[in-house]
Amino acid sequence: MSVNSFGRLFRFTTWGESHGPAIGAVVDGCPPGLAIDESVIQPFLDARRPGQSKYTTQRQEPDAVRILSGVFEGRTTGTPISLMIENVDQRSKDYSEVAQAYRPGHADYAYDAKYGFRDYRGGGRSSARETASRVAAGAVARLVIPEVKILAYVSEIGGDMIDPGNFDEHEITENPFFCPDPAAAKRWEAIVDDARKSGSSVGAVVECYASGVPAGWGAPLYGKLDADLAAAMMGINAVKGFEIGDGFAAARLSGEQNADPMRPSRETGPDGAPEFLANHAGGIAGGISTGQPVTCRVAFKPTSSILTPQQTITRSGEATEMFTKGRHDPCVGIRGVPVVEAMMALVLADHKLLHRGQCG
Amino acid sequence: MSVNSFGRLFRFTTWGESHGPAIGAVVDGCPPGLAIDESVIQPFLDARRPGQSKYTTQRQEPDAVRILSGVFEGRTTGTPISLMIENVDQRSKDYSEVAQAYRPGHADYAYDAKYGFRDYRGGGRSSARETASRVAAGAVARLVIPEVKILAYVSEIGGDMIDPGNFDEHEITENPFFCPDPAAAKRWEAIVDDARKSGSSVGAVVECYASGVPAGWGAPLYGKLDADLAAAMMGINAVKGFEIGDGFAAARLSGEQNADPMRPSRETGPDGAPEFLANHAGGIAGGISTGQPVTCRVAFKPTSSILTPQQTITRSGEATEMFTKGRHDPCVGIRGVPVVEAMMALVLADHKLLHRGQCG
Amino acid sequence: MSVNSFGRLFRFTTWGESHGPAIGAVVDGCPPGLAIDESVIQPFLDARRPGQSKYTTQRQEPDAVRILSGVFEGRTTGTPISLMIENVDQRSKDYSEVAQAYRPGHADYAYDAKYGFRDYRGGGRSSARETASRVAAGAVARLVIPEVKILAYVSEIGGDMIDPGNFDEHEITENPFFCPDPAAAKRWEAIVDDARKSGSSVGAVVECYASGVPAGWGAPLYGKLDADLAAAMMGINAVKGFEIGDGFAAARLSGEQNADPMRPSRETGPDGAPEFLANHAGGIAGGISTGQPVTCRVAFKPTSSILTPQQTITRSGEATEMFTKGRHDPCVGIRGVPVVEAMMALVLADHKLLHRGQCG
Amino acid sequence: MSVNSFGRLFRFTTWGESHGPAIGAVVDGCPPGLAIDESVIQPFLDARRPGQSKYTTQRQEPDAVRILSGVFEGRTTGTPISLMIENVDQRSKDYSEVAQAYRPGHADYAYDAKYGFRDYRGGGRSSARETASRVAAGAVARLVIPEVKILAYVSEIGGDMIDPGNFDEHEITENPFFCPDPAAAKRWEAIVDDARKSGSSVGAVVECYASGVPAGWGAPLYGKLDADLAAAMMGINAVKGFEIGDGFAAARLSGEQNADPMRPSRETGPDGAPEFLANHAGGIAGGISTGQPVTCRVAFKPTSSILTPQQTITRSGEATEMFTKGRHDPCVGIRGVPVVEAMMALVLADHKLLHRGQCG
Repeated sequence: MSVNSFGRLFRFTTWGESHGPAIGAVVDGCPPGLAIDESVIQPFLDARRPGQSKYTTQRQEPDAVRILSGVFEGRTTGTPISLMIENVDQRSKDYSEVAQAYRPGHADYAYDAKYGFRDYRGGGRSSARETASRVAAGAVARLVIPEVKILAYVSEIGGDMIDPGNFDEHEITENPFFCPDPAAAKRWEAIVDDARKSGSSVGAVVECYASGVPAGWGAPLYGKLDADLAAAMMGINAVKGFEIGDGFAAARLSGEQNADPMRPSRETGPDGAPEFLANHAGGIAGGISTGQPVTCRVAFKPTSSILTPQQTITRSGEATEMFTKGRHDPCVGIRGVPVVEAMMALVLADHKLLHRGQCG
Repeated sequence: MSVNSFGRLFRFTTWGESHGPAIGAVVDGCPPGLAIDESVIQPFLDARRPGQSKYTTQRQEPDAVRILSGVFEGRTTGTPISLMIENVDQRSKDYSEVAQAYRPGHADYAYDAKYGFRDYRGGGRSSARETASRVAAGAVARLVIPEVKILAYVSEIGGDMIDPGNFDEHEITENPFFCPDPAAAKRWEAIVDDARKSGSSVGAVVECYASGVPAGWGAPLYGKLDADLAAAMMGINAVKGFEIGDGFAAARLSGEQNADPMRPSRETGPDGAPEFLANHAGGIAGGISTGQPVTCRVAFKPTSSILTPQQTITRSGEATEMFTKGRHDPCVGIRGVPVVEAMMALVLADHKLLHRGQCG
Repeated sequence: MSVNSFGRLFRFTTWGESHGPAIGAVVDGCPPGLAIDESVIQPFLDARRPGQSKYTTQRQEPDAVRILSGVFEGRTTGTPISLMIENVDQRSKDYSEVAQAYRPGHADYAYDAKYGFRDYRGGGRSSARETASRVAAGAVARLVIPEVKILAYVSEIGGDMIDPGNFDEHEITENPFFCPDPAAAKRWEAIVDDARKSGSSVGAVVECYASGVPAGWGAPLYGKLDADLAAAMMGINAVKGFEIGDGFAAARLSGEQNADPMRPSRETGPDGAPEFLANHAGGIAGGISTGQPVTCRVAFKPTSSILTPQQTITRSGEATEMFTKGRHDPCVGIRGVPVVEAMMALVLADHKLLHRGQCG
Repeated sequence: MSVNSFGRLFRFTTWGESHGPAIGAVVDGCPPGLAIDESVIQPFLDARRPGQSKYTTQRQEPDAVRILSGVFEGRTTGTPISLMIENVDQRSKDYSEVAQAYRPGHADYAYDAKYGFRDYRGGGRSSARETASRVAAGAVARLVIPEVKILAYVSEIGGDMIDPGNFDEHEITENPFFCPDPAAAKRWEAIVDDARKSGSSVGAVVECYASGVPAGWGAPLYGKLDADLAAAMMGINAVKGFEIGDGFAAARLSGEQNADPMRPSRETGPDGAPEFLANHAGGIAGGISTGQPVTCRVAFKPTSSILTPQQTITRSGEATEMFTKGRHDPCVGIRGVPVVEAMMALVLADHKLLHRGQCG
């Protein structure tokens, strides 16, 4: 019931605010015996870490994770794994303006409406900083699903898309945008830099696929693999849309165009898994994986923190204007890539264990 | 943990297969004292009922709901409300082909991969027939949120969109497509009829908005109102995409274009809720409602049941071809409209109770 | 979150009131492929059925169960199993007195305090009739744990205990008290008959053990096997106490007296499971099964329905006196035996699946 | 689903092992706006703290709690409250014996059977040290239920009971046994000291009552207040039995003896809550509070750590003998008192929020 937890058998709970002493996650349900230490988790946090290029926020956080429980002699014990990341660069600044007025597009007003007051420093709990906890938890989840390869990348920034013909997986880590198309990455430099310089921001689309998922994970009807993925991705800050497989494009296809025919696999022989001739469905049918790659797309809005003053109201309901000072991502979707991968891993790990529990 | 349940405080569990004796839902957590009998639920089932026009499946189901528990002297008692709908038109036909081979695009193969075998009659548990249970549960949920008005409609069929300038709420119930634009409804007659006659199918987009939702419902970070809506909608058969507010279009806007500025409300005075000058966010910020209408869009794929033969495999892994006989919706998104409304009601009722529990 | 559901992976939800049209349970999470039909469930309901001797209530209910979903061609499909039992002998009587005043010792006042009003016919939802749903669900759970043998019996009625030296498992089904000691059963005839004739009632203690439970089921720290059993048993109507192993008696032992030493098993050899030299712990250590029989004791109060008038108040708060008319169990613990067995099966089935999911 | 979490709306998750760097709890669902800082929690931890008399373990732990999140400007924010307690006195000792063989009566063997290996240092996750996390979480829960007064005490040690006629609430904090009867406290000095000196141990019974609980908290049928209390208490290390109200003694009463008659309250007048003439039920009927004090009893076994060598087996299944070296509680029930109080607070806080959510 906890609204700060996610997952069923493989379940994690996050805690922490942007400017508190630390953030963290408690991972419960991780199978025992998996080899782990901080060095297994840290690379994923490093990929998400801010301040690595001029295209992301200049907040400097080492994001060094500590494992406080659940691991003994280098292996998971089956008990809760407590992960903690100290907040280091909580720049002490003047928060009086944001304390008194609501930043439009942020959760400030909604939090006050719900809770009566809020931790206004850097967005508090609603800060994207929380996603570091997910990335740490996701690194644990990956250990549960070694058979799965997860890959996410940015496919579109500010409306400018990659050319699928240029797709090169190895390019993704070669530019600051997680972009698989070097030509697009080049164009995005100007787009994001322009947004940054002008105090504006741009949106992005992140695509993710997971290969190696065997047929049979997921469940009808309220534990559908795609519904869980949707909830996982929509829970990431700034995400406004989710598609599985062809998504909205499928709504414009005919039944024939959208078909995913099957034939016996040449590799596995007549008794094995089928070979699919298309994957409009994104690897999921009836909420259950089919053995094809699981593919999804996630839409990130432009960050709401911009330098252009906007109308808003104060806590006492009076009109005012605000613009956002301080360090912000001109394109929050870029650093969303490791988070999308983490959420994919967390959902798949959970469903692997669920499947084993009910049908194993 | 039940994968056939949804919701936290207001929680429902559905059961039943397309060709079993009945389907149903158990609604738990409904507050006591609400006036209810079958006549409160039946109209919503009637709106979803098949066989009402040539544009939907010709299966004839009265879908008469019975309340078996949880109601006494015309009021909810706070105990579980058991709702049952008997299956009447389970046409006894020859299922030997579908028993032996997998219909492409359907869940047949995935179910077999997961469970080892399946109820192959009419799709069994994966049949869209299950959505009748949700509509019944949703009718109960509406009683919990009398302050909210929910409206869903089809905005696009086969790639043909409504003209927002023609939007007329009263038209929605005046045509067989739940279409608010009479000109579009006229065009859709041909589109859907062509699909039906040619044994093909078309996709659709359903939009839904809920007005009257007060600010403060929802929760960070894994109980976000939009994440719960995404899971709810993605759990509906044939849904492949979900957007809150501007959704994927927001990824193409700049921060300035996507802003939702606020000013003091002229109606409520300086201490009241703000007036928003835009609603790109779809009424939700940081997972919590802002008091604006909650708006979302849901993509339905074309139904996979088409008359064109497609390659597939048999249960024993041999190549074959199949096409789908029998009664089917040429555009399954149409009958999705009452289901989308029901899921919206179910999510909102749950979050109203949650908010009252934690912050009330 | 549903307060009418129990279990994690193997989870059931019950619904229904004593005098509504039916009661039932939805079992979710049952593994696929298990052979089942109504005849598998009915014997357990028959054992619990009222009206079989003069020592239990004279309400006549056939308690015929129907399976409405989740089973196809005689096997479970992995989807929810809906079980329904129609209420037949809802004798239409005058409920005006119980509608207006609160029966002491019953839940009448508490329900009104919570919900504002109540279904007063026969106790409504709080009637022991609900336990038929648990027995039906428990029969399904047994299929999940064929390796386990569960046996419950009455060990004490009205303070009169069985003699452990007389224990004979085969006697349990040979008398109307589920009593393993024929001499005690003889004595209990008089005790219960006296209570019945005088309009009084007596309490009972039910003992249950489960053999064949392998080491490793259960979980720290809030999913302890014994804590789940406690919750399961305390949820049965009229239960007031629970003990695992030696229970309260262990509080009077020294550490030496309470020890459960181990030695290598003569049967399985040095690598196998140990042989325990005692079982004070009741087969559970740290919340996890040890491979010994799981043993527990459950205290049933005397039913509160007695013919002696008692002081109480009316709904409007005025003083009155009441006694309970109608058909009642003079010793409700007797019919508790099949319910205790069912709850044991339900908890064990759940933990078997959980263990398989996390550690399998 | 997490087996290391407890509660529904007010939910906490604990993590940590006896000899890891720290232990902790994440409390989710705490209402916003409650005044809190470490000084509110610390006194409860101090009451549970070891090493305060010769009657408890000599492990020296300051048990200083830190609040890492969920609190801003001295008030709860409604977001997760992360509580951490560093382990200070993890005496580095030789664990080779306990690594290689199973301490009888401890969870060593069960953990190995479940997880394949275990953190053997000081019991790891199964150490009673974990209960510090519960006490910290319980201190937060108390803030949610200011209307309730909770009081627990030891009523029996080694079979020697308090005299109810000597009951004096103020004595409880005046002796090292949480004993309300000064004469019994005097006797227990010898009992516990004898056990300590001889390397033996004794069991205890803890009683707890909560006054001020309004009628209406709790829920049928699997969210019963007494069932939740049973699960909460049985989850405490070394607990083997639970009773609500008269518990097992009720099984020996007649219906007349066990009756809790009601009459109009002299104080509140005819429309108010009734006055009960007895409280055999322990303040709960049908799983719902009646407005009477909630009373329960909890049985603690003697700690299994004793100096007398006992037969056991090694990890490789060979016979050996072990006795427990090191620092241990001769009567673990004594320090169970603050834990029992904490669990009572946690269950009541959860049910207060649940009631407000569903019926508020």
